[in-house]
Amino acid sequence: MKNKLPPIHLLKMTLFSKDKPLLLECGKTLGPIEIAYETYGTLNEKKSNTILICHALSGDSHAAGLYKDDPENVGWWNWLIGPNKAIDTNKYFVICSNVLGGCKGSTGPSSINPKTNKPYGLDFPILTISDMVNAQKELISSLEIKKLKMIIGGSMGGMQAMEWAIQFPEMVESCIPIASTHQLSPQAIAFDAVGRHAILKDEKNGLPIARMIGHITYVSTDSMNKKFGRRLQKKTDYGYDFDTDFQIESYLKYQGDKFATRFDAHTYLYITKALSYFDLSKKHGSLLKAFESVSAKFLVIAIDSDWLYPSAQSKAIVKTLIKLNKEVTYCELNSKFGHDAFLLENQDLKDIVSNYLEQNKIGKNS
Amino acid sequence: MKNKLPPIHLLKMTLFSKDKPLLLECGKTLGPIEIAYETYGTLNEKKSNTILICHALSGDSHAAGLYKDDPENVGWWNWLIGPNKAIDTNKYFVICSNVLGGCKGSTGPSSINPKTNKPYGLDFPILTISDMVNAQKELISSLEIKKLKMIIGGSMGGMQAMEWAIQFPEMVESCIPIASTHQLSPQAIAFDAVGRHAILKDEKNGLPIARMIGHITYVSTDSMNKKFGRRLQKKTDYGYDFDTDFQIESYLKYQGDKFATRFDAHTYLYITKALSYFDLSKKHGSLLKAFESVSAKFLVIAIDSDWLYPSAQSKAIVKTLIKLNKEVTYCELNSKFGHDAFLLENQDLKDIVSNYLEQNKIGKNS
Repeated sequence: MKNKLPPIHLLKMTLFSKDKPLLLECGKTLGPIEIAYETYGTLNEKKSNTILICHALSGDSHAAGLYKDDPENVGWWNWLIGPNKAIDTNKYFVICSNVLGGCKGSTGPSSINPKTNKPYGLDFPILTISDMVNAQKELISSLEIKKLKMIIGGSMGGMQAMEWAIQFPEMVESCIPIASTHQLSPQAIAFDAVGRHAILKDEKNGLPIARMIGHITYVSTDSMNKKFGRRLQKKTDYGYDFDTDFQIESYLKYQGDKFATRFDAHTYLYITKALSYFDLSKKHGSLLKAFESVSAKFLVIAIDSDWLYPSAQSKAIVKTLIKLNKEVTYCELNSKFGHDAFLLENQDLKDIVSNYLEQNKIGKNS
Repeated sequence: MKNKLPPIHLLKMTLFSKDKPLLLECGKTLGPIEIAYETYGTLNEKKSNTILICHALSGDSHAAGLYKDDPENVGWWNWLIGPNKAIDTNKYFVICSNVLGGCKGSTGPSSINPKTNKPYGLDFPILTISDMVNAQKELISSLEIKKLKMIIGGSMGGMQAMEWAIQFPEMVESCIPIASTHQLSPQAIAFDAVGRHAILKDEKNGLPIARMIGHITYVSTDSMNKKFGRRLQKKTDYGYDFDTDFQIESYLKYQGDKFATRFDAHTYLYITKALSYFDLSKKHGSLLKAFESVSAKFLVIAIDSDWLYPSAQSKAIVKTLIKLNKEVTYCELNSKFGHDAFLLENQDLKDIVSNYLEQNKIGKNS
């Protein structure tokens, strides 16, 4: 039994080809496609112990552990994934891949367009969550994995998890969407649309603006009140100028600028568009029809202080699954941190996930 | 008894002077100052029938009626103010002025700086709500009005109303802040800060972005769901490009662009800064101390679906006034429209205001 993950390597797989490309929902095709991914733990002989992690808007394939040469860069779900952790890499083979359209190693708008030998930029085709899942499915298949023990993800990661369970029912044993939704509210569409508008006007200055808007929506008012209140940033009184006065202003500006150094403005455009397009009711005619064919067990987790994807949206999914007589558990996490709570270390989330895995452990169903 | 307001004229008054300027809270001075205003109804002999209307962020002095040469441009509170309306201009002399720092006739950043003979721009001094009220008080005094029957305003207008009651207790008989607050929440500060950030990066493109962000915060999620839902704009399916797909996107873009044709980006900067700075607790040491000296009766009106200035903030003001043994009435308007509900024709608001005026009518207290 290992107690620590060995150094992590960023892996890459080339999928599809010019002749056998991926057909996207928009009608265009893409191929070859490169997908960046990481794995933690060991695939068992039966290939029955795989857990797929799906990341959110600004995430990447680096979900756990450390790279040998970059000891500061801890995986974003490192508190959840690892030896003897909730998602125990001594038992499970864990995979996380960067989404198609991403900017962390997978083919996306910053990749070279073979037709022009220049980055795609806005010539990259519009993607959907389903396209991302289809690319990811090709990765899983090429690893000769026929069934996933579990797919888990927060926010957009939850959308991918649901899309997997719907598109490939025979491949998904259990599905855990966290702080997710079957369709963005008009308000959530609106916030993303303003961010895209800012980027389309000015890529360089627009991305920090989009991130600042997004960041406000990821946290609850309570946590903002507690963390920042109306406290001033390194000032005893108002500055009476247009510099930042309040800690919250300074924090947002810092977050926006930092994000712009690590993220591609075009990827932000494509991913938020995919989020806005995600609508299981529209695609399938109704939510009932969307989930009709799933065979996975569901554990739907919402966050009580999430006002971006409010828990009522998770409950709508749960009610649909109940109506369809599917096996579903609902859990509303009590957290003051809002939408992004799923990214923050949380004992309840650890306990829920590890108990769920224990109840559905290998050998019991596979 | 008139049944219709006569054509309205935009009036202007020059106040203060180079030698006797207005001392601003930031320590700088400003003078002369021009204030644009309108009046409706007739001042009675005792000069005891004046009602002062205070406008919100994007408002102006044109609160009621029509200009002779612009029959499309109806005053923003025309459904509330006029002959035989809730604020009855057959009985009351109603004044509304454009705030100091505004861009609708009053001295502001687009005015000519006498020192440079060019528009002030960002050389205009930072203003506070108190500065706006001090300029407005000079207007009222120069009209030889010593007491205001009522001051009423929504959002920033409510802040001015409260500031009046605090700064000039002997001049204010009753005070009606609607959908207002004694201090912006960190979240509200944050939204305004992102808007200012966008404008400071690019005035022309930034103002529509700021307005789009603001607009999202002015409406409730319920009303957005009902008015727009996820309906597409003149499309039967997604466009799979970066044009607008959803009605809500199209609407916001339209609102942002329209606003930029009628509003000054610098005024937006100055007014949102004044909103962020408004903090009665900070200025006076506590909310109790802030309201200690008021003699006005208060009618505090909140809107139940307002998430920008939530009703809890109005209740904090009411509780303070109760502790101080002041005369205060609280009313929570039931409206699905969110913060901006105070601008939309509303029978309850009409009834509340007209009943309040009837209970406190002229002759009873003056």
